[in-house]
Amino acid sequence: MGLIVQKFGGTSVANVECVERVAGIIADTYHAGNNVVAVVSAQGDTTDDLIRKAKEINPKASKREMDVLLSTGEQISMSLLAMAIQKMDLPVVSLTGAQAGMRTDIAYGNAKIERIDTERLESEIGKGKIVIIAGFQGTNRYDDITTLGRGGSDTTAVAFAAALNADLCQIYTDVDGVYTADPRIVPDAKKLDEISYDEMLELASLGAQVLHNRSVEMAKRYSVDMEVLSSFQKAQGTKVKEVVGVEKMLIRGVARDNHVARIAIIGLPDRPGTVFQIFSRLGKAKINVDVILQSIGRDGTKDVSFTVDESNTENAVSILKEILPSLGGRSITHDSNIAKVSIVGAGMATNPGVAAKMFEALYQAGINIQMISTSEIKVSVLIERDEADRAVKIVHNAFHFGS
Amino acid sequence: MGLIVQKFGGTSVANVECVERVAGIIADTYHAGNNVVAVVSAQGDTTDDLIRKAKEINPKASKREMDVLLSTGEQISMSLLAMAIQKMDLPVVSLTGAQAGMRTDIAYGNAKIERIDTERLESEIGKGKIVIIAGFQGTNRYDDITTLGRGGSDTTAVAFAAALNADLCQIYTDVDGVYTADPRIVPDAKKLDEISYDEMLELASLGAQVLHNRSVEMAKRYSVDMEVLSSFQKAQGTKVKEVVGVEKMLIRGVARDNHVARIAIIGLPDRPGTVFQIFSRLGKAKINVDVILQSIGRDGTKDVSFTVDESNTENAVSILKEILPSLGGRSITHDSNIAKVSIVGAGMATNPGVAAKMFEALYQAGINIQMISTSEIKVSVLIERDEADRAVKIVHNAFHFGS
Repeated sequence: MGLIVQKFGGTSVANVECVERVAGIIADTYHAGNNVVAVVSAQGDTTDDLIRKAKEINPKASKREMDVLLSTGEQISMSLLAMAIQKMDLPVVSLTGAQAGMRTDIAYGNAKIERIDTERLESEIGKGKIVIIAGFQGTNRYDDITTLGRGGSDTTAVAFAAALNADLCQIYTDVDGVYTADPRIVPDAKKLDEISYDEMLELASLGAQVLHNRSVEMAKRYSVDMEVLSSFQKAQGTKVKEVVGVEKMLIRGVARDNHVARIAIIGLPDRPGTVFQIFSRLGKAKINVDVILQSIGRDGTKDVSFTVDESNTENAVSILKEILPSLGGRSITHDSNIAKVSIVGAGMATNPGVAAKMFEALYQAGINIQMISTSEIKVSVLIERDEADRAVKIVHNAFHFGS
Repeated sequence: MGLIVQKFGGTSVANVECVERVAGIIADTYHAGNNVVAVVSAQGDTTDDLIRKAKEINPKASKREMDVLLSTGEQISMSLLAMAIQKMDLPVVSLTGAQAGMRTDIAYGNAKIERIDTERLESEIGKGKIVIIAGFQGTNRYDDITTLGRGGSDTTAVAFAAALNADLCQIYTDVDGVYTADPRIVPDAKKLDEISYDEMLELASLGAQVLHNRSVEMAKRYSVDMEVLSSFQKAQGTKVKEVVGVEKMLIRGVARDNHVARIAIIGLPDRPGTVFQIFSRLGKAKINVDVILQSIGRDGTKDVSFTVDESNTENAVSILKEILPSLGGRSITHDSNIAKVSIVGAGMATNPGVAAKMFEALYQAGINIQMISTSEIKVSVLIERDEADRAVKIVHNAFHFGS
């Protein structure tokens, strides 16, 4: 008995059958004695269809008008879902982002949530109604429609859960939880019962692709208990929360990211400030830099290597070529034939043997480690991309997740 | 130089080519030194598609949720039209009914306009922007989305023209004006340069199908000058306004309505109150009754005949069968094989010869008149439906419109 916010993604409401399934999940939660607020995405390919329509008319349309257009996708799915719930004779009302009180900044296409005016929402919940909200959208101070950009629907759900002080925020998706590794690579990967925000953040940014970081960061900030679960099969999912129970496992899982590239600047003079110049310039271009390695060359020069998201390679290289003369470096190289494999777990910090165990397993399998990066709760290694899946299996096996 | 409200229907924005054509019309009006507010309908079949989607999920969905769903149709077309205008490097902003200040009553699916809050609109116009507004929709006192029902988009345009004190309200459609008869029936029908509100109302309700009555009634109430013209060809349309110029023609046009049925109640006792009982009962069932004829029978009884919209026949007959015993009538008959042909014109009232001319033309062509109804500005006759098109041609010819 409490207030539960549920979020259903585009594949979960893709067609009539899916919408009815989701209506059933909501009805079950309601019949169990809970108030339910459901946040819903646009159906399946609706957003892509709308983008195509816009591009036919004007590929350079303003972001404001794109937001007006795209926000209709969620408005369609929220009303259809409400109709499916009406069919079950349950009290329900659908609300657009604007009606639900979602107020954002003015960054059309990629707006940030500023606050939620919960008056209308609380009034509808108070009347005993199930409330369906359009995810991904709000209005700004000009009363204009905005969309929240990538990960916006998950983040909408967490924000409403925080604003309403909900007991739980359930993210329904096409997978049934967070696994110790990608089950497509490691068939005996185990589903986690729970995971901490920080661990989830590392796993997400390392390529686990279950929850968007933005939503987990917000959940952490406002201590919202989350649960990731499947809308297609009935089963307990994975809880994401601040304090997780004591478990045997030291680490939560193994992640793989094939979308990285390594860039190296060779023969830089060994003087202070060069590294700062490089990364501040890339930062200005909004290029995120991940694993960084600096080595001293034999002739008094140094080499700097780092990884970027593969899609940023070209842009990063052209920026570096521009500043190479002023840096006094010799050359720039880049390599996309790499992957990042990581283990994540809060148990890592107090167990120095964990990293060694990972390295040993890779060594024995003949997989060469090119770069290493560690934090309090993760260890990442860069290896050849062709070896990535095998590395995930080997590391997963070494930590006995499957047993 | 002034403020012009333009309305574009669903066929006018059906596809990319159409949207670009409409953008061109708006741009031309703007470049001629006018401020432009454009009211736009949903694209082509969008509304039907959305209704089909809803019916798949819940044929008995609430009208509130239907309005949430259907209002997305105009939101899509308004943003696409704004994008097309952006491509011409003109300043433009699209507004939903809610943003444009359209406030309605709470009758979901068939809302009436209560007022328009023009603050936002005037601010955008003041910035020199072309404003695109979603027709057919507004919000009610609960901040819920409502739609205006049949003829809603035309009415939206006239309401905004009235609220903004616009110089002209242009209704762009798929015909290029109001004709002296339907050009599909009478090829040499002439386009009228202008027509009064009352004449237009008679023509519209008599089946001319160019403008919805609701919009003309509102234009009359607020003295909004209207113009009906085509979005597919450049040409002056037909002006609809209070005072029209002196013209040679006594009547404006000939209209035909094939969607009528005649119902007769035979053998009613000739006592006061029976006719009142019949029509008040039909009125309660929202059945509009048109031409009424009462005849005295030979045996001290009377027969009452009247016409209804064909779609109401079944409903009307079943109501009458219910009350027939209490009325003391003998039987009820109905006939759908009829049509109403009318001539309309403000010159009628002062020229009694006009009706006679119509009757004579029909008599000479061997067309039997079953019932007659007249008003200050029209004469309608009921005839056999098969004769309707021939009657229109004959009457049109008798008044020399084609010459």
